[in-house]
Formats: sequence, C-alpha cells, structure tokens
Amino acid sequence: MPSSTVAERRGPWQKARMQTPPARIGDPIDAVDTPALIVDLDAFDANIARMAAFGREAGIELRPHAKTHRCPAVALRQVAAGAVGQCVQTIGEAEAMVAGGIADVMVTNQIVSPLKLARLTALAERARVSLLVDSPEGVALASQAAAERGVELGCLVEIEIGMGRCGIAPGAPAAELGRRIADAPSLKFLGLQAYNGRSQHFVKLADRRAAVERAADAVRETVQALTAHGLTAEIIGGAGTGTFRLEAAAGLWTELQVGSYVFMDREYASLEGEGGRVEPEFRQSLFVLATIVSHSAPDRAVANGGLKVMSAEQGKPGLTDMPGAEVVGISDEHSLIRLGQGAPAVAIGQPVRLVPSHCDPTVNLHDWIVAVRGDRVEEIWPVTARGASR
Amino acid sequence: MPSSTVAERRGPWQKARMQTPPARIGDPIDAVDTPALIVDLDAFDANIARMAAFGREAGIELRPHAKTHRCPAVALRQVAAGAVGQCVQTIGEAEAMVAGGIADVMVTNQIVSPLKLARLTALAERARVSLLVDSPEGVALASQAAAERGVELGCLVEIEIGMGRCGIAPGAPAAELGRRIADAPSLKFLGLQAYNGRSQHFVKLADRRAAVERAADAVRETVQALTAHGLTAEIIGGAGTGTFRLEAAAGLWTELQVGSYVFMDREYASLEGEGGRVEPEFRQSLFVLATIVSHSAPDRAVANGGLKVMSAEQGKPGLTDMPGAEVVGISDEHSLIRLGQGAPAVAIGQPVRLVPSHCDPTVNLHDWIVAVRGDRVEEIWPVTARGASR
Repeated sequence: MPSSTVAERRGPWQKARMQTPPARIGDPIDAVDTPALIVDLDAFDANIARMAAFGREAGIELRPHAKTHRCPAVALRQVAAGAVGQCVQTIGEAEAMVAGGIADVMVTNQIVSPLKLARLTALAERARVSLLVDSPEGVALASQAAAERGVELGCLVEIEIGMGRCGIAPGAPAAELGRRIADAPSLKFLGLQAYNGRSQHFVKLADRRAAVERAADAVRETVQALTAHGLTAEIIGGAGTGTFRLEAAAGLWTELQVGSYVFMDREYASLEGEGGRVEPEFRQSLFVLATIVSHSAPDRAVANGGLKVMSAEQGKPGLTDMPGAEVVGISDEHSLIRLGQGAPAVAIGQPVRLVPSHCDPTVNLHDWIVAVRGDRVEEIWPVTARGASR
Repeated sequence: MPSSTVAERRGPWQKARMQTPPARIGDPIDAVDTPALIVDLDAFDANIARMAAFGREAGIELRPHAKTHRCPAVALRQVAAGAVGQCVQTIGEAEAMVAGGIADVMVTNQIVSPLKLARLTALAERARVSLLVDSPEGVALASQAAAERGVELGCLVEIEIGMGRCGIAPGAPAAELGRRIADAPSLKFLGLQAYNGRSQHFVKLADRRAAVERAADAVRETVQALTAHGLTAEIIGGAGTGTFRLEAAAGLWTELQVGSYVFMDREYASLEGEGGRVEPEFRQSLFVLATIVSHSAPDRAVANGGLKVMSAEQGKPGLTDMPGAEVVGISDEHSLIRLGQGAPAVAIGQPVRLVPSHCDPTVNLHDWIVAVRGDRVEEIWPVTARGASR
C-alpha cells in the first residue's frame, strides 16, 4: 500500500489552526474571555505536592499519566516534584511530551501500526521510550520497527486484571510473552503493566480494595511465572487516582500511574473513601469559566459553555458558589441552569465556574489552560497534545 | 478592567498546533492513519442534494447550521446547492465561515461580551452578519458595538417556544423587544428565531408534531404583536433535522436551520418517523475509522478510538459491517467491542468503522475530515472552527 511517510504528512499541511488564548498573563480573572478552561494554581500545586509526598513516604515511584492533561507545562511540574517521567496513551502525546522536555515516556497502550511505531522509534533516539504489548504480533511489530531504526525500545507485558479490555492472561501466558520480548531483537523486557481502569471508578472503597487484591494475586502469579523463564520485572506499573493507596500498600507495584489527581472532577468526587470522599485532600483545581448569556425567566439562566468545552458522558457539570442552582441541561454551546429556592440572583454577563464531570476528555477540548492564582492570571499553558489521538 | 484587544491576543501566540492530516489525497482508505474522522462522499453528497431539493420544492430557504461541521468546505457545498448562508453558534465559527468564503452568517445565539461583539462587528465589514437577542441588555450591547464600528448588525428576537433555554416570551414581550431593536442605532430588525432544540430529539413523530404546532402558535401570536408595533419579520428561523418538514408545512418559518442531516448520527437514527426511521433518505455519512489493536480473548476486541475522537454523552458508538458485535465500553482512547454469537472473526490491525452517537461534538474533536469516495481518499478538509467556542 502506498502509505505516505511521516515527513510527507507534515510540512505544507502544518498551518496555524489553534484558537487564540482567552487571556493574557497578568489579567484579572474577570478579563478572561469565556468559555475558558482555568486551573486554580493553589489547588493544583497542593495536589502535585500531596501526591509527590505520598510517593516519597510510600517508597514508590510516580509516573503520572499525560492523558489527563496533554500539557507539558503540567508534566514538567510533576517531574520537578519527583516523578520519573510520564505515561501517555498515544504516539502524539509521546511526541508532545518529549518535545516539551520529558525524558522518559511510557506508552501505556497497544501500538500495532508500522507508521506509529516508526514515530515512536524516532522518539527513542531522543528520550527513554517504552510501550506495552499483549500479543505476539505486537512483539514482532515493535521489534521490527526498533531494529529498522537501530534503537532499543523498552517493552512491558500488559496483563488483564479485571478491566476486560487489553491485556494477556496473567501467569504463564504473560510470562511466555515476556520471554518472547526478551528474545526479540531491539526490545528490552522491562516488566508488567497491571492497570484496571474500571476499578478506579467503583463507588465503594470495599469494591476497589477487592479489585486490587485480585489484581495483586494476578501480578504475583505472573512474577513467579517470569522467574521460571529467567525474567525479572524491573517495572510493575498501574494504579490510578481511585486506587493508588491500595496498589502502593500491596508492595508489588513499582510505579503509580495516577492522572486525575492534578485536576480532579465531579465523577471522582462522587466516589466513597475512608469515612467520606475518595481523596478529600485532593481538591478540584479544574474549572470551565463561563458567562451568563441569557436569563429570560426567574427560574433559569444559561451559561455559554457546553459540550464543546466539557465532556458530558459522565454527567452534567457542577456549579461552584451557587447553592440552590443546578445544571440541568447541556448542549453544544450552552449549560442550562435551574435556579431553585435560595439560589443567588444572577445577571447577564456574570461569570460562573463549572466543574467538569470528566477531566481527561474535557482538557482535550481546549488549546489553552489559563492558570490563575486567586483572581489573577499567572500563566497560560498550551495543551500541545490537544487532539493528539494518533 | 485592562482587557486585551483582539489584535493583542493574536500574533505571537498563534502557533501551529493542529495535528497532521491522517491521510493524503489519493490514498486508498486502508492507508489512512487511525483513528480518523471520515466522510463517505456518496452519502454526504446525496444528503446535501436531498435537503436542497426539499427546500426548493417546499419554497423555503435553507440556512444550514455550521455548529454541526465547523468546516467551510462543507458550508461551501451547502451554499453551492442553494443555501442562503450559514448559521453559527459562536463568533469563532462566524470568523471561520467568513474566512472560508461564506457571505451571510447568522449567529443563532446570545452574544453579550463587548470583546465578542467587537469581533462580530469587524466581520460585518466583510459579510452580512446577524445575531439574536432575548433581553434589553443584549439590544443595548449589540447596538453600542455596531455604532462604535460604524456598521449595521442584523438582529432577530429569539422567542422561547418550549426548549426552556434562551428566548424571551412570545407575543407582546417579544414584539416590544423587536421595537427596541428597530429603534436602536446601528441595528436592523430582521425577524424572529423560533427554534426548539429539544423537540428535534423526541423519539415519537407525534410528539415532535405537537411541539411544532405549539411553536407555530407562538410564532403567529408574535407576528401579530409585531404588526401592532409596525414591524414585519423578514426572517423567521428555526427547525432542525428532526422536525424540518413540520416547520416547512406550517407556512410560517422562512428559513430551515438544519445541521445534522449532512452527517447524521446514531441518536438521530434512533428516532421514529413516518413508518420507520426519522429520515430514511438521509444516510449516515460520518464515521470514525479505527483499528483493532488488541484481541486477547475470543469474545472481545479493542479499537483505538475513544472519548477523544467521539463524543459519548448520547451513548456509545455503533459498528458497521460487524453483525453480532457491539461497542460495550468507551474510554479515553479505546472502544471495547463485545463479539457475540456469529460475529465475524477479527484480527489485530484490522480497520473498523464506528458510527458516532452525536455528530456535532464529535466533529469538533478533529482537525481534519477525510472525505472518501468508495475506497479512495478524494479530499481532506480542515475543520477550521475546531475548538472555536469563543
């Protein structure tokens, strides 16, 4: 097939098409053009510091997941606080992270396209790069790509531990795949990926605990099977914002791949933890700043942020500082607010802060994150991997 | 407040940040890098021709809505087929449409920010531009902006006809607002906007019919009230892909603001029309082309397109050409496919076509639309208003 090279796909096509930033550094927050994605830096800084302190105290590495932020400015702050690098989900994210100064990137995904593997091996000339496999085909494709470029790719076996998505069966099948990696030219066997994205979101702590216990059994069985093949897992990766304390306590995982903790969202806030919210010390730092554009009846108002600035598959956004008010509808460019008993008066032109229900796909809708400290715009970060799903 | 000017927000900030296109013109479809947004041109062309024919036969103008496609290449084809111009929902969309060659743009939204109104009046120097109001504040702000620039803005009263979102009450309140527009410097009273986004999606045809009948009563009452103020509505806009035949039959509306018909989606396909689907002659033209990247158990496979290439607040995507298979999960970068009895065999690397559940926010996730005819890439269209929600 006459597929084009990476170079041919760039060059003449690469034109400016990002949106202009919604503010300037130094602006007061009420000068921010809306709808805009804002980060409260006090909450954001505290979230990064708290997770870093947890890793240090637990004696476990952090490799935060860039799928949450797609933004090197965020990744660099996580690394400055001690993280070993970043996880990414796509080659485009990997390219953006390396271009932004991240030296160690793990693609926590199955990459089976020769074009994508060629981009990954190009990155391996500039950074430490690894990826997952769950099939012999995956091993063969990665090995061939790395050999063609003359680089070595780190490679981990993804095991299926309850999510029912990607991943080979733990134990002997996983160890055999590990052996295949170790024997393949230009690949280095690094270890295991044991991640369950579903269990992050179980509402009850007891259910999350049971899921991690089952996962730990699968990891133990696989580590033993690797030993029989003469292999040692240097890295065992996994965990997320909903379960990271449990994986750390299990004493098997070597890296926590937490993502959402930097921003938090409405869905995570709804989970139950020890005596309350899942992680009360992690604060909501991510908001969509919108403006009331219509208020044509006493019981309703409309804000100018909708489905194109907030993902809604996890539900409608929340509101801050508006007791008695609720978002009851969301469409392309509007959030419909029902004003109940005791809701504060609203006026056309008034700003409103919306709390996204799911942070990862919400950030991906924006070219810029406006980082505010109190009421002042302190920084403006480009989301350089926005749209980078290839 | 020291707000920045439009010019200051551009210039140094405007850097290339769009993704490279996933294909080249002339490529076979199996050379398209995935996940990619593709349009089947045979279905797309037929959809445009059919809606254009409907408008001609019904004697009613078409002003398709650019919120669906955010892409001048699509808009130009609609205008070439006879449409009077485009609707948009944001100033960024209006700028992209005018830059792309559309000469008549209606902002079907409430615009109450001086910064945005300044951008709109700048456009009015180059194109015919109109917007909606539903409040005296809206009239005053638009009038002031137009007067400052020395241009005239077309202005329509948005009336509330059952959606419970924006819009002033029909009848006397709407007519009084119309009078206020007619009396305001630099505004031209154009007519009424009578759109009910909710009723587009009522599953039963009878419910959609009843909603349009109620809306027609409200329009009639408002037209009479306008007459008492010495005003005539040159334009009465509204309708969508779910109801356009009903508004056309009512004999009141002058413009149909249909959007989704060019692409269609899974949600529209689920509505009931006369003896079956809502609009059987409009075909699904929009797909996400993805690739199977994991198949680690006989009953499941995983495709590499997720929440960042398809909006899912209207449900999971559908599958084409895979009887017995179903998308049962969607996450940031994956669609999890359950392979039931009789499902075809799948292989790693195999392409799969996903049918988005909601076309508008799905297109907004992409920088490029790959337009295919049969198995060949015929055109590649930039989605120049991608992300343009300000």
